[in-house]
Amino acid sequence: MNLHQIGEFGLIRRIQKKFPSPVSSVPLGIGDDAAAILPSPQKYLLLTTDSLLEQTHFDLSFSNFLQIGYKAVAVNISDIAAMGGTPRFFMVSLGLTERQTVHEVDQLYRGIRKGSREAGIYLIGGNTTSSKGAFFISLTVLGEVSKNEMVTRRGAKVGDSLYVTGTLGDAAAGLELLQKGYNTKSFRRLVQRYQIPQARWKEGRLLAGHAIPSAMIDLSDGLTSDMGHLAEESGVGIELDLSRIPVSAPLKQYSLQIGGDPLKYALHGGEDYELLFSVPEKKIGKLQKLLQKGLIRAERIGIITGRKRGLVARSESGEVQRIYPGGYNHFKRGRGDVEGGPPG
Amino acid sequence: MNLHQIGEFGLIRRIQKKFPSPVSSVPLGIGDDAAAILPSPQKYLLLTTDSLLEQTHFDLSFSNFLQIGYKAVAVNISDIAAMGGTPRFFMVSLGLTERQTVHEVDQLYRGIRKGSREAGIYLIGGNTTSSKGAFFISLTVLGEVSKNEMVTRRGAKVGDSLYVTGTLGDAAAGLELLQKGYNTKSFRRLVQRYQIPQARWKEGRLLAGHAIPSAMIDLSDGLTSDMGHLAEESGVGIELDLSRIPVSAPLKQYSLQIGGDPLKYALHGGEDYELLFSVPEKKIGKLQKLLQKGLIRAERIGIITGRKRGLVARSESGEVQRIYPGGYNHFKRGRGDVEGGPPG
Repeated sequence: MNLHQIGEFGLIRRIQKKFPSPVSSVPLGIGDDAAAILPSPQKYLLLTTDSLLEQTHFDLSFSNFLQIGYKAVAVNISDIAAMGGTPRFFMVSLGLTERQTVHEVDQLYRGIRKGSREAGIYLIGGNTTSSKGAFFISLTVLGEVSKNEMVTRRGAKVGDSLYVTGTLGDAAAGLELLQKGYNTKSFRRLVQRYQIPQARWKEGRLLAGHAIPSAMIDLSDGLTSDMGHLAEESGVGIELDLSRIPVSAPLKQYSLQIGGDPLKYALHGGEDYELLFSVPEKKIGKLQKLLQKGLIRAERIGIITGRKRGLVARSESGEVQRIYPGGYNHFKRGRGDVEGGPPG
Repeated sequence: MNLHQIGEFGLIRRIQKKFPSPVSSVPLGIGDDAAAILPSPQKYLLLTTDSLLEQTHFDLSFSNFLQIGYKAVAVNISDIAAMGGTPRFFMVSLGLTERQTVHEVDQLYRGIRKGSREAGIYLIGGNTTSSKGAFFISLTVLGEVSKNEMVTRRGAKVGDSLYVTGTLGDAAAGLELLQKGYNTKSFRRLVQRYQIPQARWKEGRLLAGHAIPSAMIDLSDGLTSDMGHLAEESGVGIELDLSRIPVSAPLKQYSLQIGGDPLKYALHGGEDYELLFSVPEKKIGKLQKLLQKGLIRAERIGIITGRKRGLVARSESGEVQRIYPGGYNHFKRGRGDVEGGPPG
């Protein structure tokens, strides 16, 4: 069945059926000129929007529609997580080409539903248009956070410790495996981290709820790129400890196999969607407790320094070198090395 | 200067400079992982998102970037207007191709700024990505409305009168003028209504504030298409009075010149962004007062009937015929006549 047969409004009806009816905080959901929600009193409403474009952000031979739908939810929720917020509602904008079938759109919405159910967020609206160019999906996600719990990129202070959740570089290695046509079975975990990333919204909430981070950002473009944004917005410098960058066992194994350096992926690879956050000295005890209880997994990977120091990295041998952002930057040609090679 | 030279973050800085700083209701604007707003207590927050895609919604030889930016704001505000809301905030998602220059993006934002200033709305965030396909712009607009003033598509009752603001069909004729390469100077007004539509948010607020409409929708796809949505959501039928469809002098003149029927444009042409609304008998006096004071311009073009009657039109001679939706429907091939010819 193709999209011409069911039409735009047939598509809206299909979507309405598969997503739950409005809750009390959604007086008006899908199907009118606009959606209406009733925000919680005395809280900040958080808003973020991110698009995934065919050829720019994904290749349909590396990701199926279910994965793309799931990922579109994850990348937006990750932004809410970085503010310490609870994701609540979302809207979907689709640009569908003539090539897309109804089955593919259904798969896309299955992925969206899976991601949104896991995070407990409600679909409240959106729009679907025919695209003459590439297929794209754009989500707007709304979250909420108590006024005194919101975490921005701006609060890092000299002397704060820098932490990161999870492990870094897996998604970049996973994408490379797909691009190079390697056998992905033995590195399923790496490929999955690229195809269906897990947004750290539980971790973000936990940290913000305990007032632990002084600043926080999610890692979408890559560690060296995103740590630069946190440093710039906070007006500080950062010294990374390269020996502490958390790297997964599969990434180590893959790097060994191809004779590469896992740090290359961990420092410059994008799409890990882990949280990078700074922690003042007096909050480290609280964080340690959460780590010991196994409620969160995070590694201390550096320290906040004065602005003039810039972005530097200390190697295992103690050598300190300047870091050049190597993550993804739209409109700059290529990655990393164009702007200056990575250190060490 | 091209986009590679300034990069994604250079672009964000340019935008930040040109849009006013956050007001008190925007604790966190552009430049963090998410924006934060403080919604008004006890009001519904309205949300809508609409995209304009190159080749699908516009042709760069018919609209310049300034006009596209302005129009992207208007089409979204129009949805807030149709709910009776006040537009407040917005986010912009751009998909820019290699062809776009910094000047063009600046022009686009000039248009966005013009539209957003007129409506008094604040830019709070967004994202910009490189698109390998066509250029697109997608806006999310947030509005607010008191709980008892929100107007949906669902409240039209048998016996209500059907009104429309302004005149219909101008934008469709304007687009035709551009597409056929006619001399547009003598029909500047028609072309302008296509290129820089005016959203009726003042009218929507005025009507909702006086509790006049029982249901309302904005005319984006075309009268026959959008009246069908209002009828379906309200569970009613509609009888149009063809002699009362408001048509502008320039459209009459253009139709005369090409030997066409102005009603064809007025019934089936999209992108007028006028408001279509139903008014209960007891509220007509209130509306008449607003009309007499010149606070709003609207025409009574029909009546709400029982659902079984469906969508019909009465011609000047009194003949009644069935109406077939002829507006734009994404994924259905072509317009209007494919699904059944227009009446009369």
